[in-house]
Amino acid sequence: MKIVNKIADVRLEVGNAKKAGKLVGFVPTMGFLHPGHISLVKIAGENSEFVVMSIFVNKLQFNDLNDFNGYPKDLERDIAIAENGGVDLLFLPDDKEMYRSNLTTVDVDLITENLCGAHRPGHFKGVFTVVSKLFNIVQPDIAVFGQKDIQQAVSIEKMVYDLNFPVKIIVAPTVRESDGLAMSSRNKHLSEKQRKEALSLSRSFAACEKLIDSGERDAEKISESIRAVILEGSPDSIDYISIVKYEDLSYAEKIDGKTVVAVAAFWGTTRLIDNMIIDKKDDGYICIY
Amino acid sequence: MKIVNKIADVRLEVGNAKKAGKLVGFVPTMGFLHPGHISLVKIAGENSEFVVMSIFVNKLQFNDLNDFNGYPKDLERDIAIAENGGVDLLFLPDDKEMYRSNLTTVDVDLITENLCGAHRPGHFKGVFTVVSKLFNIVQPDIAVFGQKDIQQAVSIEKMVYDLNFPVKIIVAPTVRESDGLAMSSRNKHLSEKQRKEALSLSRSFAACEKLIDSGERDAEKISESIRAVILEGSPDSIDYISIVKYEDLSYAEKIDGKTVVAVAAFWGTTRLIDNMIIDKKDDGYICIY
Repeated sequence: MKIVNKIADVRLEVGNAKKAGKLVGFVPTMGFLHPGHISLVKIAGENSEFVVMSIFVNKLQFNDLNDFNGYPKDLERDIAIAENGGVDLLFLPDDKEMYRSNLTTVDVDLITENLCGAHRPGHFKGVFTVVSKLFNIVQPDIAVFGQKDIQQAVSIEKMVYDLNFPVKIIVAPTVRESDGLAMSSRNKHLSEKQRKEALSLSRSFAACEKLIDSGERDAEKISESIRAVILEGSPDSIDYISIVKYEDLSYAEKIDGKTVVAVAAFWGTTRLIDNMIIDKKDDGYICIY
Repeated sequence: MKIVNKIADVRLEVGNAKKAGKLVGFVPTMGFLHPGHISLVKIAGENSEFVVMSIFVNKLQFNDLNDFNGYPKDLERDIAIAENGGVDLLFLPDDKEMYRSNLTTVDVDLITENLCGAHRPGHFKGVFTVVSKLFNIVQPDIAVFGQKDIQQAVSIEKMVYDLNFPVKIIVAPTVRESDGLAMSSRNKHLSEKQRKEALSLSRSFAACEKLIDSGERDAEKISESIRAVILEGSPDSIDYISIVKYEDLSYAEKIDGKTVVAVAAFWGTTRLIDNMIIDKKDDGYICIY
């Protein structure tokens, strides 16, 4: 694995890979790598012959400077994980290399109120801008984003479609613990009891899947069944249960085409999110979570 | 010259040119070609081996739907001019091919009030968005923009710099009639008398150049001398005389680094614009107009 800090060096290395006829895969990250990231690298490796990972904590997408300054870092560990995971080129730019000037922004006017957007003003604009920059720097053939952050994945697909970026986006299924809990750095804040209760999130998707399989298409009825299952896990509160169209994240009244079921709930002060994609397959629907 | 309407065909043709080791040059236009456009093609041809021109009247950059609908068109003539001018690939997309969805926008937060921006809300956002799309579709090595529309040229340079587009921008000097009048489709609205009077615009730059050569650096004094020369041409009004920093179009108090002198004035109802770039060269400055 090669490690570079400069944009010019990324272009040189990727240019060489392309000249050798290799497809280039890309996994952008903010570091502090966990198995979720490695699953993205694995999928990038299955779909390309030269995998680039970037680690860059993007100031532009933080609303709170304290959050930015407090963002966890462990570069030495990250480098080892990336190398073992199969990364060919690791791009570690600093702030100065990425933001020589900062007047241009990219925005996607998706309905963001239905999921996490309302809580994070400006966040997504910062994401779109840095991802546009990274796409132009790395010029990958494919890029992999996690389903866990579904709003980010859908918006970036939309951005790529609208601006005609020559990049194929792959949305990688959420990595889960063996019992079904979506992996998250927040899980460590849960007590043993809360940890078990929080399994109600993924269980609610299993219940939802059965409903869909049985032919139910009404979003409100599906939402009610999800709520009932999550409540079995005694959360301190349910933040939202949203059933939205994949295409633009607008509310869906019925399951009709690609759809997202997204949930957020609190156990104590720990806010957990999870989601399921309902996609057309053959005559019916397939649930991915 | 090949003519294509589909994005996929542009990528195929440009891909073939790149595989053959050719540098790709790009001239985006809205059609109704004139000698100014052909000078851009010529410069693209001098700096690349495969010249792509696009003709697309971009709805997004019109504030007024009447202006959009009334935008002059003469496709048959344009095709002949492009072919004679040395274009290798002409891209003629329709609205549906370019805007399948229209939720993503690119914006550059340059100070636009100092020149024409204040008069055209939303205009530049539409330009940045379509140029980003065209860059991603054509993936040129170089792209040529005219100095005549200096605000557009400077903003696109900033956009390319900020978003790391792998494209070199060339700003091509304004094409002038033999007597110095900047070419413009508006010139035909001038009476013979007005036509002569309007030469005071380019004459004001010659006077400015002399002042600069003599060591004058004070923007207000330079501005006064320009005003005096333009007034000799009896314009009905002077819209603005702006001396701004090239980098961000903010007002310059002194000539100190790359600078733009931009003027706009009316003869009758005809508004003419012109500009000069003052750039550092060796120990002094060079004026480009």
